[in-house]
Amino acid sequence: MGKVVLGPQRFDCVMPTVLVGINVDDKPNFLAIASCGEVCAEPPTVSVAVRHHRYSHRGIRQNMTFSVNIPSDDMLRETDYCGIASGSKVNKAEICRFKVFYGKLGSAPLIEQCPLNLECRVVHILDLGSHSLFIGRIEETHITESCLTDGNPDAAKIKPFIYSMAPDRRYHALGEVIAPAFSTGRELKAGE
Amino acid sequence: MGKVVLGPQRFDCVMPTVLVGINVDDKPNFLAIASCGEVCAEPPTVSVAVRHHRYSHRGIRQNMTFSVNIPSDDMLRETDYCGIASGSKVNKAEICRFKVFYGKLGSAPLIEQCPLNLECRVVHILDLGSHSLFIGRIEETHITESCLTDGNPDAAKIKPFIYSMAPDRRYHALGEVIAPAFSTGRELKAGE
Repeated sequence: MGKVVLGPQRFDCVMPTVLVGINVDDKPNFLAIASCGEVCAEPPTVSVAVRHHRYSHRGIRQNMTFSVNIPSDDMLRETDYCGIASGSKVNKAEICRFKVFYGKLGSAPLIEQCPLNLECRVVHILDLGSHSLFIGRIEETHITESCLTDGNPDAAKIKPFIYSMAPDRRYHALGEVIAPAFSTGRELKAGE
Repeated sequence: MGKVVLGPQRFDCVMPTVLVGINVDDKPNFLAIASCGEVCAEPPTVSVAVRHHRYSHRGIRQNMTFSVNIPSDDMLRETDYCGIASGSKVNKAEICRFKVFYGKLGSAPLIEQCPLNLECRVVHILDLGSHSLFIGRIEETHITESCLTDGNPDAAKIKPFIYSMAPDRRYHALGEVIAPAFSTGRELKAGE
């Protein structure tokens, strides 16, 4: 199992693709990124990394709010478009026919067609180099009713899709369930 | 498409499962988490969120280094075990038969069996509540030679697996490629 050293290159692990919603000069804009994740459980907190030159950057600082919208795999074309186009030139919500709504925070635009929508209030901003990291407390979660199972969000119904950078930039579907968590590892308990 | 409001609950999006490596009192320990992601491209930077009560917490502060090791789906049992057991009581590396090695940083333990290994130096620590967020510059990347395609890491060969919390905590395989990125969205350019 030979190892190769590649130097300090970008992290190529697969990540879910999300649409970050931001009001810029009071108009909704959406940004497709794969650099979003949970950073704290209590209180529930997420982070999103956004390049400095992106149009949305200014909007997050204006309102100190953003949304995270999880698209289903049937929204792949629209999501991809939101990663290509710039809100400084076009109205992405209009071109993608997103039904935009606002919740509790009033300034974080949400996409009706996305099954899962989080409203977030910025609590930290870190400038890390090419990207700023915005850390947001989840103030409200909205979910499409048909994506619930016993009152909880169900990943198999949400059908998020996964971005991988290498060897070529592409989207993967979420694969089948291969095991329950906090379970199979118990077999190794015998060896303790 | 009715929406339901769930309140400020945890973010349930699917995330890759990784093994974070930390030296605690000069001994290697490994922690399974799904709260790890890229936070900056240049310089390449990742974050990992770790609960305050975890044994490894102390080790990251001792060395200001950690590693991120991406397990393949054939390491599911060992990875799951590293999320159940505590390094304060058992030597997880020994029980899992991990071949541990060190690279450039000298204090971030790496797992030979994991196809992708990142050595990281901590540049920020944020206390967010239940979790601390450790932000680390990637100082070196190691990869198993057979997981390269034309000199680049290949997600389809690495075979990471994905954790989902809801409705039940479970692991998914990485699904099939459904589209190239920065491509299908171009169809919407016509509507601009």
